[in-house]
Amino acid sequence: MINRIGVLTSGGDAPGMNAAIRAVVRTAAQHGVEVIGIRKGYSGLLEMDTKGLGVDDVADIINTGGTFLYTARSEEFRTAEGQRKAADNVRELGLDGLVVIGGDGSFEGARRLSELGINVMGIPVTIDNDIACTDYTIGFDTAVNTAMEAIDRIRETSISHERVSIVEVMGRGAGYISLWCGIANGAEDILIPERYDGNMEALIEKLVNHILENRRRGKTHHVIVNAEGIGHTHEIAEELEKRTGIGTRTSIIGYLQRGGSPTAKDRVLASLMGAYSVERFIEGGSSEIVAVHNDKIISYDITEALGMYKDIDAFMYKVSGLMVRS
Amino acid sequence: MINRIGVLTSGGDAPGMNAAIRAVVRTAAQHGVEVIGIRKGYSGLLEMDTKGLGVDDVADIINTGGTFLYTARSEEFRTAEGQRKAADNVRELGLDGLVVIGGDGSFEGARRLSELGINVMGIPVTIDNDIACTDYTIGFDTAVNTAMEAIDRIRETSISHERVSIVEVMGRGAGYISLWCGIANGAEDILIPERYDGNMEALIEKLVNHILENRRRGKTHHVIVNAEGIGHTHEIAEELEKRTGIGTRTSIIGYLQRGGSPTAKDRVLASLMGAYSVERFIEGGSSEIVAVHNDKIISYDITEALGMYKDIDAFMYKVSGLMVRS
Amino acid sequence: MINRIGVLTSGGDAPGMNAAIRAVVRTAAQHGVEVIGIRKGYSGLLEMDTKGLGVDDVADIINTGGTFLYTARSEEFRTAEGQRKAADNVRELGLDGLVVIGGDGSFEGARRLSELGINVMGIPVTIDNDIACTDYTIGFDTAVNTAMEAIDRIRETSISHERVSIVEVMGRGAGYISLWCGIANGAEDILIPERYDGNMEALIEKLVNHILENRRRGKTHHVIVNAEGIGHTHEIAEELEKRTGIGTRTSIIGYLQRGGSPTAKDRVLASLMGAYSVERFIEGGSSEIVAVHNDKIISYDITEALGMYKDIDAFMYKVSGLMVRS
Amino acid sequence: MINRIGVLTSGGDAPGMNAAIRAVVRTAAQHGVEVIGIRKGYSGLLEMDTKGLGVDDVADIINTGGTFLYTARSEEFRTAEGQRKAADNVRELGLDGLVVIGGDGSFEGARRLSELGINVMGIPVTIDNDIACTDYTIGFDTAVNTAMEAIDRIRETSISHERVSIVEVMGRGAGYISLWCGIANGAEDILIPERYDGNMEALIEKLVNHILENRRRGKTHHVIVNAEGIGHTHEIAEELEKRTGIGTRTSIIGYLQRGGSPTAKDRVLASLMGAYSVERFIEGGSSEIVAVHNDKIISYDITEALGMYKDIDAFMYKVSGLMVRS
Repeated sequence: MINRIGVLTSGGDAPGMNAAIRAVVRTAAQHGVEVIGIRKGYSGLLEMDTKGLGVDDVADIINTGGTFLYTARSEEFRTAEGQRKAADNVRELGLDGLVVIGGDGSFEGARRLSELGINVMGIPVTIDNDIACTDYTIGFDTAVNTAMEAIDRIRETSISHERVSIVEVMGRGAGYISLWCGIANGAEDILIPERYDGNMEALIEKLVNHILENRRRGKTHHVIVNAEGIGHTHEIAEELEKRTGIGTRTSIIGYLQRGGSPTAKDRVLASLMGAYSVERFIEGGSSEIVAVHNDKIISYDITEALGMYKDIDAFMYKVSGLMVRS
Repeated sequence: MINRIGVLTSGGDAPGMNAAIRAVVRTAAQHGVEVIGIRKGYSGLLEMDTKGLGVDDVADIINTGGTFLYTARSEEFRTAEGQRKAADNVRELGLDGLVVIGGDGSFEGARRLSELGINVMGIPVTIDNDIACTDYTIGFDTAVNTAMEAIDRIRETSISHERVSIVEVMGRGAGYISLWCGIANGAEDILIPERYDGNMEALIEKLVNHILENRRRGKTHHVIVNAEGIGHTHEIAEELEKRTGIGTRTSIIGYLQRGGSPTAKDRVLASLMGAYSVERFIEGGSSEIVAVHNDKIISYDITEALGMYKDIDAFMYKVSGLMVRS
Repeated sequence: MINRIGVLTSGGDAPGMNAAIRAVVRTAAQHGVEVIGIRKGYSGLLEMDTKGLGVDDVADIINTGGTFLYTARSEEFRTAEGQRKAADNVRELGLDGLVVIGGDGSFEGARRLSELGINVMGIPVTIDNDIACTDYTIGFDTAVNTAMEAIDRIRETSISHERVSIVEVMGRGAGYISLWCGIANGAEDILIPERYDGNMEALIEKLVNHILENRRRGKTHHVIVNAEGIGHTHEIAEELEKRTGIGTRTSIIGYLQRGGSPTAKDRVLASLMGAYSVERFIEGGSSEIVAVHNDKIISYDITEALGMYKDIDAFMYKVSGLMVRS
Repeated sequence: MINRIGVLTSGGDAPGMNAAIRAVVRTAAQHGVEVIGIRKGYSGLLEMDTKGLGVDDVADIINTGGTFLYTARSEEFRTAEGQRKAADNVRELGLDGLVVIGGDGSFEGARRLSELGINVMGIPVTIDNDIACTDYTIGFDTAVNTAMEAIDRIRETSISHERVSIVEVMGRGAGYISLWCGIANGAEDILIPERYDGNMEALIEKLVNHILENRRRGKTHHVIVNAEGIGHTHEIAEELEKRTGIGTRTSIIGYLQRGGSPTAKDRVLASLMGAYSVERFIEGGSSEIVAVHNDKIISYDITEALGMYKDIDAFMYKVSGLMVRS
């Protein structure tokens, strides 16, 4: 029997976290389940920084970015002792389940709690879309659109000045934002870590050749979208300018990709996944991660989920190549 | 052997049409295939209103709404004679294939051409998402986000004045925009034609009860999202105001849902589907409709595709009910 | 000596109201002045619906639309008795001054209170820009940009379909939104009440001639921006379609013009005017309306202010004519 | 008699340049004056890179960022010889006047041409608002709103993570963007070069104290808006983190501030100023800069204009101080 559950947000914030919390609270209310909000992720769980959450507490937040429960990183929770204390606190709070909203790192923490007997349910929210078990992570669509709109603007000034622009988007190990923006912005080059072999010299040479070839064809601007994981964007820019003789400007999109009112997709999927997580608890589910697979909401066992691997879509990558060449 | 193909946009315009044309042209260029743009849909095909399209003709259009090839409805093309003439014109233009970008009505036209021996490939672009063979139609995401942002604004003034607002979004026979906006905007009521039994009196009574019940609970605003197919929105508003005694305002989102720079999803899917359509021609595909199924780009035989049926997602509809109740 | 002041928002809501309240509260706090928020305008003043407002109560609202103090119309306050009661309530609350945030109607109410001995200060906030004493009213810039972005979208679909579009923006007696959007959207015709002589037949004829003349010149779309004060937009559209034979579509922008996160101009001017209103109280000012004149913040005696008249800018009107002709 | 004029854009691009060109062309057309567009600023003038501009050439550009005439910096034009050649080219093109759209540097070039007998008219377009003779420069409003929306997003993630954020906006010698964003975003600290004495150590200490004092009061986020002219933003961030022990993140808004569809204000003022520049030529004006003064469009003699000085508004600066303190 599920009478009371907890909910926390952990790791990097992303648009849609509030919509997910709201869906958890509203769905729980429909089923007569009490919800305890835990502030500042696992750190707040260790400090018992909690508050009861009713339907009125989640009014007018579906369209807001960030997380009103805050998020934080916790050194203490990385230790076995910290994890035991956290599990004890869950029990002390009388929680029959804990919804963890976050990314891979947060789910690894959830898995540890699960091994200590806590009933957890993960909702994948990260702008990077880099959680293997799910086709989609909440926050990605908003981040891509934010970055894309920024690059639309940068492209305009790049055209007016007939310059090369290299734009760095987020995604350390994951090139999804870069690949999507690269296609969506009609970039002339798209760099993603999944297809980078570490040979910077060869990469620079390829870019230089592409820029010069485009100039010869009469195309006088050139936008390169780079994922933050590849090299140092400022240094690449300097090298390109030096070798091509063409003014090259760097833009780092940065933290603005994390914020903003979520897009329709992020609001709707956060609502679906938040509702699903509570329904799984009620149906007896335990230690799972909610996921999108083939356009349906499902869930996986957390250990299984964390062992999965996903790659970028092969056809999308192929098309990105077709679109940049000319 | 595919040496030359035509491309046209038909039916209601939607954001992403230009991105799809661009992908067709760029992919064809990679394969050495010539592209002839046909202006104003089937009407322009009948009038031979065409122009060759090279890579430079589709520069800087991926981020634009509307269709630079224009679109129009053609009475003549509805006749058997018109269709024969159109097929003859395709042959006269020496087209080995014709890409038709549009919705259900446009595909019905394409099927007729197909029966007359023309090799067609359909790309589903309509803001209504009401094409049965595909999980997604290009333009839908942009339209939903545009309507959602408008409703976010309307909601604010509704809250400040403690009013009821009924907002009509597009979708005559299809409630997708309404359902998505209803969830994404945290609407208090969501009306969709797929779940409307035609009993307006019962619907009004249900809305009145919900409004009054929310007031009793202390909730002093109430947003209803309505699909255009259900009743007459102004009349519903008058009836609600009369019966509840609470100021009720109507907003018709209207044509602004059709325009605007496409979202990342619409730009990317238009690129993928546009590329896919050309690749299918080259692989020998004939008389197909490109579709998204289980998050992959595939294609169906056009006759099979037009015979399909799809309903709104059952879990999404259930969640919409969970989110509005309180 | 000013120890305690009240603040209320009244009339139609507009983006920037929250920013103005915030500036009042923060400026008062700097001067050790207590602030009482009065909910629902004069209606709430009559019902003593109040709450103390400290700096924390106005955190994170500068970027929000609507008014968190709500607004309402009050029949009772229109009576002499209601006004006396309101003045008594201001005294009972111990308010040394009352900041009224709103439009012309709200200021007329403030003037009545002023005659009953209440020390009032008006801050002009209305999307219509129709307050004579000030070059600018808070909310106008946001409303114009919202309407303009909507019309940008409508224009695109109008171009794709080669149609006539008539778009109605707000402004019953005032054509500012229409004039600004008309210029900003590059409309083909701009209708404003200040320059409309009431002869609908002549207006229709002029529009028909302009549409047909543009078609002859090869321009196949035509956007007309209309202020809500002129005729009935749907009927004008029908008449145009009938007489020109060209598909004509109507869009009513409606309530979405009232909402949304305020633009920089509205946030900044609300901050300046809110601060100014409190400083005027402290300097001994009484019964004034804060205004923008020649790009400076000043204030006028309220009776003088309400007797002023302003017209649209002559050069702007002339340029609007230069830009639409072709 | 004015029969033919030229128009060029020069210096850094800014939203509204296209709207200004359009207004020049349309106004000239009304007066039967021919317009020659000169590409790439003075550089294109030296190379005679020109094209005739008719009304159709400026269709559908009022809502676009960048400049379709391109802009460039020219080393050759900085020399006396280059300037003589440019003046000769103006005469060879038969131009009775030259409209220069740009900033201070571009106007300095125009003044040189004026001394060589060329009839010039300057239209102030720069995102920095740093042209002394005019209260407003086209492009500023769009840039401020773009930066403000970015900072709204950054603020959200800053709140979720309870961090300090330092955000650098453009404006090397001019703090207008920083001051406006600082107020509009409700920043906790606003740094502008006009009020910076060069003492970085004192500035850091003041910021550290403010951050720590706010923490003591329970405020757990802190946004600092910095103009690019002050110090090195990354280094300031490092210093703040070291001294406060609170996570501090840097965001450089960068080139995206230069692009984007212009706001209503920028489109309207570009239309007014563009029209005014042509009318001044026709009225016999010569060697002037168009300006906004006291909300009216006027013009100044170019030499007089370039000798003017303007400071940030004293009341606005005072209010910025009132709003950040708490």
